[in-house]
Amino acid sequence: MSRFLSRRHKNLVPYVPGEQPREGSFIKLNTNESPFPPSPLVLERVREEAAALRLYPDPDARRLREKLAAHLGVTPENVLVTNGSDEALAFAFLAFFDEETPVRFPDITYGFYPVYCSLCGVTADIRPLREDFTVCVDDYIAAGRPIILANPNAPTGLFLPVSDIERIAASNPDHIVLIDEAYIDFGGESAVPLINRYENLLVVGTFSKSRSLAGARIGYAVASPPLIQDLDTIRNSFNPYNLSRMSMAAGEAALIEQAYYTNNCLEIVRVREKTAERLKKLGFVLTDSRANFLFARHPKHSGRDLYSGLRGRGILVRWFNRPRISEYLRITIGTAEQMNTFLKEVQSIIEREEP
Amino acid sequence: MSRFLSRRHKNLVPYVPGEQPREGSFIKLNTNESPFPPSPLVLERVREEAAALRLYPDPDARRLREKLAAHLGVTPENVLVTNGSDEALAFAFLAFFDEETPVRFPDITYGFYPVYCSLCGVTADIRPLREDFTVCVDDYIAAGRPIILANPNAPTGLFLPVSDIERIAASNPDHIVLIDEAYIDFGGESAVPLINRYENLLVVGTFSKSRSLAGARIGYAVASPPLIQDLDTIRNSFNPYNLSRMSMAAGEAALIEQAYYTNNCLEIVRVREKTAERLKKLGFVLTDSRANFLFARHPKHSGRDLYSGLRGRGILVRWFNRPRISEYLRITIGTAEQMNTFLKEVQSIIEREEP
Repeated sequence: MSRFLSRRHKNLVPYVPGEQPREGSFIKLNTNESPFPPSPLVLERVREEAAALRLYPDPDARRLREKLAAHLGVTPENVLVTNGSDEALAFAFLAFFDEETPVRFPDITYGFYPVYCSLCGVTADIRPLREDFTVCVDDYIAAGRPIILANPNAPTGLFLPVSDIERIAASNPDHIVLIDEAYIDFGGESAVPLINRYENLLVVGTFSKSRSLAGARIGYAVASPPLIQDLDTIRNSFNPYNLSRMSMAAGEAALIEQAYYTNNCLEIVRVREKTAERLKKLGFVLTDSRANFLFARHPKHSGRDLYSGLRGRGILVRWFNRPRISEYLRITIGTAEQMNTFLKEVQSIIEREEP
Repeated sequence: MSRFLSRRHKNLVPYVPGEQPREGSFIKLNTNESPFPPSPLVLERVREEAAALRLYPDPDARRLREKLAAHLGVTPENVLVTNGSDEALAFAFLAFFDEETPVRFPDITYGFYPVYCSLCGVTADIRPLREDFTVCVDDYIAAGRPIILANPNAPTGLFLPVSDIERIAASNPDHIVLIDEAYIDFGGESAVPLINRYENLLVVGTFSKSRSLAGARIGYAVASPPLIQDLDTIRNSFNPYNLSRMSMAAGEAALIEQAYYTNNCLEIVRVREKTAERLKKLGFVLTDSRANFLFARHPKHSGRDLYSGLRGRGILVRWFNRPRISEYLRITIGTAEQMNTFLKEVQSIIEREEP
């Protein structure tokens, strides 16, 4: 830390993303990427767009917003596109949350929310999930303050029915209810159809998981037009050209070949369910994940040991050294073949250590 | 504005970027883009990288930082890469400036600085440029507060010798001196060699102009390692994956084919000087621009009329309806051919109106 850093950031502890190994040939099940490449049209459009790089992108991202809006069943005025969904979250914090009102979210959820609180001087009003990691909905009814819920939640994978989201939004009409739907396409049901009924409802999504575009950095926010205008004011006061030409081209193309991505999601769900069954047979305890990952612990093996053992065998999963979840692994769903290798290695670790 | 926008942003007026026309075949001399395409290797590397988009980028951008550091004659620990130089400026504001100390910069400069002040609750301590638009260096000696100077300045194009930058940095040892070098490659001299001598000196740059990559969104900050660490803390608390795989690949490639870009800059300087001469012959008054644009007014024709007249003839230039400069046009240097067309149209406007 330099002596020039503003006093307000003296205690800022940044988010730590999952490891992106630079060397070695790991099976990468640690950052919830898709095991499938983007569709052919994405590559084609990126390649075309590269020739136009001398020119600035459209700062309004009009074409991408139109296509995304059509896909989501809303209008372009309901949509803002961002440099990954993290930027959408950051803009939401800058726009709507401040020192005056604490923001409520669960103790076990996306680890970036407390970081944004710290960055923006917002008090985090953290409510514990129940023992089984389900959200205690009553904690969020008439909370009298802004709310953030990841749905499905990460790293638990648990999904809250949209009827509960609606009750929460309806009971907090004077505060933003932000629903982070990064993992919505793997069996959840989106709250997007509610945005024009609840002017306080803000839904955030991403192209990183179900659309195989983690490397292109495309996120979005969906809400009533006044909320989107506010987010756009922040965007235009922070970084008006926030998406490159190539990312916009990739995003547009990924909205055209819809069947390809739908099939990929179905396959990921299929492999997830099969992997979950086999992990249960090995003695694992799992949450009922609706995301592209599993969240699992083994009664006889520590999370840390399983993580290390798998790493030594060339398989990266995510392990969080945090209260309540340090015995768990978060395992991204890869291809059927990758998950077979993963299960084989898990089994060998478990059997070696309980002869 | 929604009723949910934080009270601190009630007066926030966003930056307005130059027009990016979606239709028509304008000669685009309004947003300081390069008239030359990126080098062949950029296209090749982007095309390759598109195949890897399912995976997150390296959040540390190690390869790009290494190549950029080598080019700048510093180490990777001196460099942060950002989603355009606007993001570098935004991170600098978040990191180093706050309510406690006003930040000093000229009245006529990049219009985003007052917007960042407003966004971050920082008081703008604005000092007028001299009548001839030169910076009054004494205003910045021992200022006792952070300083921002664009060098060359925009939209004036005027360049402050590095010896003056050094005096300013040396006389404000307890405050950040931020030098925005977006236009440094068109005849200026960079302050980067000073960064390890002045721990308060922060230089910001971009690939948008001299490297023909406005559409790829690549900016950077160069400073002593502690300042870069602070900026990185902010980046990792805001958007750790701030550059896409494609942008990183484009940036790396653009640092390899250096001769191509050097030649382009030389050509732009040549065309700039020639265009300036011919504008003078038409009666224009110009600043001594060291950027890839000219800043010019005509004693007998208003800035607004010239802007509109050119627009009607298919040529976009930038006109700022702001105090002191509303009689000026900012004219990006295009190809020799584009500038010939521009000059021909300017001449026809002037001659038509003074028969």
